[in-house]
Amino acid sequence: MAAPPYDEDDRMLAAVDPEATEQLSLEDLQDAWSLLVPEDRVESFRALNRPDAEDLFLFLSSHDQAELLFSIPANERRAWFRLLAPDDAADLIQEVDPEQREILLGLLDEQTRRDVVALLAYAEDDAGGLMNPRYARVRPDITIDEAITYLRRQAAERTESLPYAYVLDQDQKLRGVVSYRELFTARTGQRVAEVMATDVVSVPEAMDQEEVSQLFTTTRLLAIPVVDAQGRMKGIVTLDDVVDVVREEATEDIQKIGGTAVLEAPYLQVTPIEMIRKRGGWLAVLFVGETLTAAAMGYFQLEIAKAVALALFIPLVISSGGNSGGQATTLVIRAMALGEVRLRDWWRVVHREFFSGLGLGGILALLGFLQVVTMHRVSGAYGPHYLALGATLALSLVGVVLWGTMVGSMLPFLLRRMNFDPATASAPFVATLVDVTGLMIYFTAARLLLTGTLL
Amino acid sequence: MAAPPYDEDDRMLAAVDPEATEQLSLEDLQDAWSLLVPEDRVESFRALNRPDAEDLFLFLSSHDQAELLFSIPANERRAWFRLLAPDDAADLIQEVDPEQREILLGLLDEQTRRDVVALLAYAEDDAGGLMNPRYARVRPDITIDEAITYLRRQAAERTESLPYAYVLDQDQKLRGVVSYRELFTARTGQRVAEVMATDVVSVPEAMDQEEVSQLFTTTRLLAIPVVDAQGRMKGIVTLDDVVDVVREEATEDIQKIGGTAVLEAPYLQVTPIEMIRKRGGWLAVLFVGETLTAAAMGYFQLEIAKAVALALFIPLVISSGGNSGGQATTLVIRAMALGEVRLRDWWRVVHREFFSGLGLGGILALLGFLQVVTMHRVSGAYGPHYLALGATLALSLVGVVLWGTMVGSMLPFLLRRMNFDPATASAPFVATLVDVTGLMIYFTAARLLLTGTLL
Repeated sequence: MAAPPYDEDDRMLAAVDPEATEQLSLEDLQDAWSLLVPEDRVESFRALNRPDAEDLFLFLSSHDQAELLFSIPANERRAWFRLLAPDDAADLIQEVDPEQREILLGLLDEQTRRDVVALLAYAEDDAGGLMNPRYARVRPDITIDEAITYLRRQAAERTESLPYAYVLDQDQKLRGVVSYRELFTARTGQRVAEVMATDVVSVPEAMDQEEVSQLFTTTRLLAIPVVDAQGRMKGIVTLDDVVDVVREEATEDIQKIGGTAVLEAPYLQVTPIEMIRKRGGWLAVLFVGETLTAAAMGYFQLEIAKAVALALFIPLVISSGGNSGGQATTLVIRAMALGEVRLRDWWRVVHREFFSGLGLGGILALLGFLQVVTMHRVSGAYGPHYLALGATLALSLVGVVLWGTMVGSMLPFLLRRMNFDPATASAPFVATLVDVTGLMIYFTAARLLLTGTLL
Repeated sequence: MAAPPYDEDDRMLAAVDPEATEQLSLEDLQDAWSLLVPEDRVESFRALNRPDAEDLFLFLSSHDQAELLFSIPANERRAWFRLLAPDDAADLIQEVDPEQREILLGLLDEQTRRDVVALLAYAEDDAGGLMNPRYARVRPDITIDEAITYLRRQAAERTESLPYAYVLDQDQKLRGVVSYRELFTARTGQRVAEVMATDVVSVPEAMDQEEVSQLFTTTRLLAIPVVDAQGRMKGIVTLDDVVDVVREEATEDIQKIGGTAVLEAPYLQVTPIEMIRKRGGWLAVLFVGETLTAAAMGYFQLEIAKAVALALFIPLVISSGGNSGGQATTLVIRAMALGEVRLRDWWRVVHREFFSGLGLGGILALLGFLQVVTMHRVSGAYGPHYLALGATLALSLVGVVLWGTMVGSMLPFLLRRMNFDPATASAPFVATLVDVTGLMIYFTAARLLLTGTLL
């Protein structure tokens, strides 16, 4: 994506001068929040006027809201915590320790506490955990005028500002949906049931949030109701929550593809120790996997001793396998996440990647052969058998790239088939898998083409 | 993200049986579209009843809509193309050849054609290219009742189904916004200007779509108006477009981080030749960069010949540098895209990554040393100087991992500073940069610790 214009960064440079913290405006604080130390956060938050402070509080992530709540005096907490809609309150509560949870729940009124406790029972990443239990609702048998009066009253309470109301019968079962526009244009005296749409798209409570986000893309709705197994409406998921989900899921996938555990907080807010923990785990696993290359090379020690020139191309060969495998796994993981490729498409992917791997391997083989020939012509570096050496390099590049491409594209399918996250097939993971086999392919090609000359 | 349940895939398996194409339902077609050959697409599209066919057409991507439009008889095109809102029509037109553009523009009515041509002047990835020029509007000086009558009339036309109307003066300048709810609750006789909110968030036409998407996140609005330099309202960007933007930008970043050019079409729809072109470019660049490793190793040929055991650890050392560099660059690129890290944070990132690199390098150094000692105890593989060899490995791992981490974290800053896309610092690019220097570090450590014993 394009970099934002620089003057904005320059303006901010002035804004975060620590000496000037007290004067920070709402916009500056929104921009600079992650850069401030906790004390400055509290101080500048309390320096804002009430409406700005409310905007700032609602703008912050659940993580930052929790931190702030426990940094301000205890007697001020209630007013701030009660600003949150039940779903946001539940998200915040999931950020804090069990004993802090009790404190926070105690701050809520009876009705909201019941809503929040119900929401806490849902997994954070399914439709139930995403939904807001407050929404505009009407009965099917009332008239349009009654509905408008009723909705006007509900508008005073905290409900999402949606352009429609859901029609629920006396058992809380979802019967239809009616837009404000339909209410506007209906004839007086008509009943809600006469103007409502009955083909309502809804989702079960346990639907995974990624599936929910894809449903929003296909239906282009602003909100989707969540219903339980009996068809009773439990809440709504709104499009603005889905933007967060899409962004968050992409971040998790990117971090996994990069060979890191998911950070779970903004980069600058992860403590150094936590950062090492998140990265060290995978690095250590990859390292241990990679020690197999030392074993593999030990197996070909004799060949290396005989023809040191062979060793020179080892990094080139294995990195080519790793790079092509990394490309393939990244593309397939993303295509899976977008729903463009599904489990049963594996055979089509095999076909495509076989062709790609062969083509890409061919290109690199040509480059490799040319490189050996050119270097030899320039410096005579590779001795009388340089053509055979070039052919060895070329042959193994075709093999290694083809192999890397196949492993990289199939591993996400295998992981998903076993109900693991396909993104676990990170680029470095595939590279490590391919390195050992890449060495085998290279030295096998060498034995095949160089025995009797270099070997 | 969690894999969706399998029964869905199984259900689909039956649905895409080519023999059964004609019977595909709307839902099945939405799921299976990318898997069908073009002829089956047209056939099953034309087999749908009109409302389902309309839903399907509106559901498809601009690319697929264009393909379909030019696959059905020419006399049917007008009806389908006119279903699209001006912004969607403009997106579709950008998918086709210049001569096809003229055909399509000729299908539109005068007003829509003017709207579409105006939209085509904007870059695809800025606010102007994203906006819809149709929205509900009212004058500030009319009464609430007049506004409701007027909006009711506009509702019949195709405008986005938003819960608010924008208040424009006679010069088309944006003066405020009024929600349907405010219209509901206003007293009869009040004027729009009395109930409208005047602090309207708006964006200029040229704002980058990624910035627009971040503004939606901070403001939690359902739509944001786009205004020109004179404050005249040109259209609105709606939240549902932003979901697509967020998803698309993440896809582009993931593909770049994986070392591929951006595909620009779903994985299964990219032709094999195009796929090789998108991947071959970077692979070839990385390969040429990586040939420097062969040169670097040639420089240490004498050491390798003397102590073949040294060669065994080359893949281990350089892959550790590449993996840690890949982690760092991936985390920093994503943090930049999310706005968590900005250009001027580079020094804080240096601090953090120096600490991380040292810690991670230390962990791998320990693992490497233990591996040499263990392998030696088990097989006596590394000769009498195995402790010195282990120390060489350990020292170079600290150096290589620290170096990889610093390069990986700083490269995105450097690229962005030079106004390039930080995501160009892909993991394989960083790994390639680090491989050559990793070899230097390794052999320098060897000269330092092994001269007089192994060397």
